[in-house]
Amino acid sequence: MAPLYATTPEIQDGIRRAASVLREKGALVHCITNYVTVESCANAVLAVGASPIMSDEPTDVEDIQNICGALVINIGTLNQQTIQGMMAAGDAAARAKHPIVLDPVGAGASRLRTHVSSTLLNTLPVTLIRSNMSEAKALSGASAKTKGVDVNPEDAVTPENLERSARFARDLARNAGCVVAITGAIDLISDGQRVFAVGNGSPMQGRITGAGCMLSAFSGGYLAANPEDALFAALAAVVHAGVAGQRAQARMEGNPQDGTGSFRTYLMDALSTLTPDQLAAEARVEQVL
Amino acid sequence: MAPLYATTPEIQDGIRRAASVLREKGALVHCITNYVTVESCANAVLAVGASPIMSDEPTDVEDIQNICGALVINIGTLNQQTIQGMMAAGDAAARAKHPIVLDPVGAGASRLRTHVSSTLLNTLPVTLIRSNMSEAKALSGASAKTKGVDVNPEDAVTPENLERSARFARDLARNAGCVVAITGAIDLISDGQRVFAVGNGSPMQGRITGAGCMLSAFSGGYLAANPEDALFAALAAVVHAGVAGQRAQARMEGNPQDGTGSFRTYLMDALSTLTPDQLAAEARVEQVL
Amino acid sequence: MAPLYATTPEIQDGIRRAASVLREKGALVHCITNYVTVESCANAVLAVGASPIMSDEPTDVEDIQNICGALVINIGTLNQQTIQGMMAAGDAAARAKHPIVLDPVGAGASRLRTHVSSTLLNTLPVTLIRSNMSEAKALSGASAKTKGVDVNPEDAVTPENLERSARFARDLARNAGCVVAITGAIDLISDGQRVFAVGNGSPMQGRITGAGCMLSAFSGGYLAANPEDALFAALAAVVHAGVAGQRAQARMEGNPQDGTGSFRTYLMDALSTLTPDQLAAEARVEQVL
Repeated sequence: MAPLYATTPEIQDGIRRAASVLREKGALVHCITNYVTVESCANAVLAVGASPIMSDEPTDVEDIQNICGALVINIGTLNQQTIQGMMAAGDAAARAKHPIVLDPVGAGASRLRTHVSSTLLNTLPVTLIRSNMSEAKALSGASAKTKGVDVNPEDAVTPENLERSARFARDLARNAGCVVAITGAIDLISDGQRVFAVGNGSPMQGRITGAGCMLSAFSGGYLAANPEDALFAALAAVVHAGVAGQRAQARMEGNPQDGTGSFRTYLMDALSTLTPDQLAAEARVEQVL
Repeated sequence: MAPLYATTPEIQDGIRRAASVLREKGALVHCITNYVTVESCANAVLAVGASPIMSDEPTDVEDIQNICGALVINIGTLNQQTIQGMMAAGDAAARAKHPIVLDPVGAGASRLRTHVSSTLLNTLPVTLIRSNMSEAKALSGASAKTKGVDVNPEDAVTPENLERSARFARDLARNAGCVVAITGAIDLISDGQRVFAVGNGSPMQGRITGAGCMLSAFSGGYLAANPEDALFAALAAVVHAGVAGQRAQARMEGNPQDGTGSFRTYLMDALSTLTPDQLAAEARVEQVL
Repeated sequence: MAPLYATTPEIQDGIRRAASVLREKGALVHCITNYVTVESCANAVLAVGASPIMSDEPTDVEDIQNICGALVINIGTLNQQTIQGMMAAGDAAARAKHPIVLDPVGAGASRLRTHVSSTLLNTLPVTLIRSNMSEAKALSGASAKTKGVDVNPEDAVTPENLERSARFARDLARNAGCVVAITGAIDLISDGQRVFAVGNGSPMQGRITGAGCMLSAFSGGYLAANPEDALFAALAAVVHAGVAGQRAQARMEGNPQDGTGSFRTYLMDALSTLTPDQLAAEARVEQVL
């Protein structure tokens, strides 16, 4: 089942609308994220038209969450103090009915990461899980051998396993009661009913750290601005990341000295300059279930 | 009262001198700063001719502060451990009579941030407060609704409210017994006597994270090298940031693919290549009180 | 004793082989490193063909280390929690017989840093010490006045003191029972028998933060892929960093607006695009003892 990515006008409209609303309304996004890619996350949130605020101290997070429109929890460098901060912030977000994004970095790679991400998912009203397929499998309880923080090649979504992968994404979304965005060479976004496959993106995004973290972070902005349509908010965010990756890669052509440093700069440039119309026009999306 | 920014020769000389002395003498700057923008802060300190060292462990900070020439405290991602480190480092700086810069990130946005920044200001012999207007108002006890880590638009300094804003900056400096640098579209720098308005800078600086943090960090270098004239050290640092922002923005023109990623690179480039003479020549400064 | 850097075919072969094996086999590198330069470290590890995973929580590090091929410990922003993580991760690496890299950032600058780096060295089976000369002296117990996190100019390796410096490197390697890579304008790499001097590199690498941290981090990848020849793995890593620095500097020529921001991007570009053949061809290495 090779996807055609013949993006329908309905899907294009949904992407354009989600991006336009974010640009018009803005959003303040509270991020508890790893210290590796946190600056890139903050800049990515700004690039798409939202504003970030980072706070993980347990006695600070409630006040911060209360002035924000969404919470993003990324467990990439979790520790005992930040785990407390994640729970306290999640409670505050739940009380305020703010969308919550969970990025279970390295779930399956260690017992602590698997346990904490499962606990967060079971305890908090998570709106969106954004992860790679290995982490999603670990979170679902399916056996998965996570290759560190990268996807295990055996878990990669391919044209050959697309239908089975799409059913997995749909079932995870259904069981978790939230939207799921499993990203990789082919991205799958599902709300438990429909499943979209996205063919945007560049292999270079796997050669820098933080491409997934950035997407999780600015998904919080998309969700805060579009709380009534989490599926299309997540889809638009995934497309935004993917189209930006393609533009960044295209800009490297003809510049043999460019490598991952320039790609990273070009990626942020593209995130910050893409318009809602461009996102809609360049989206490669197909409903596969 | 629209400022003319007709920088006088006296002001130009003061800026040139502060920048020249920093380049000649160098300075080792101890930063306890947030983990979001810390790498940019370190690179910005290096760019202006000083050297950074980061340490927030309470049992490490005294030794580190003793070999440095200044302390920069930025509460952007404060936690219980780093708060202890801030206090211990501040005590060591006070004993050594080293200049202390306070960046009260998010003061007004949470009770913890307002409390910690006030406590630091009341306990330590702070030399320079560097913040946006919302944080400065929170610190002064004036009612302020901080919009996360960004200035509340209602608090922005404009030509219309310039005189009132300048009096506020002067009074805060007077009451706190230090120099104040409140930055935004119009920057205000005061030692409690005089108030300078600075018209340098680019709106792009608000579209990346860390522009303010970087300025706070390298202000520590300016102060360490120019301890006898904190007002002009702070003014020169603000002008350095602003002129660099303008140059970075100018470099984007004609490159429609450039966005916030390239701007960030160009900003660091400009910080690191601007000469004292260029700073003096391009400064847009007016004494408004 | 001015080195000629007439790299012999044997040395070229060793460098080419170490780099080729890393590219073919890949390696997962567990880094416990400072929060200042951690994103650059992660990107540098990816650039040379390995994959990074960061984890410093004591209850997480054993599982993470067990799926990795090497451990890198950098004490740049150590705290009580991460010190526990370093020890626990080091124990796990020792049990698994994984190579361990120690970067004693700021050893000599504070009692805590000197103590912790000495304790790690004495407790763990360290494979490679990567530091500047001041830190190496502090670690050896020789008196050293570390200038913050930068080398004390008095400690710099020069053509004049090269023989004495080389003997110091050899003796430190012999006493510590590991490979030593002391980097600066002239780099010295020794396994306690031979000492190589490396003349690659750019003075610009001292004008950005993290050049040494990045080298330490991706040395972990070189060692994981080449466990049977730690000396040439370390040498190849040092040459990779140095040649990349030269290429980055060369790219700045003719671009007067380029400063430390662009240099940093160009450095990552070069790290990610240099081939094993180019490293061998551009290596400036001489065996001095």
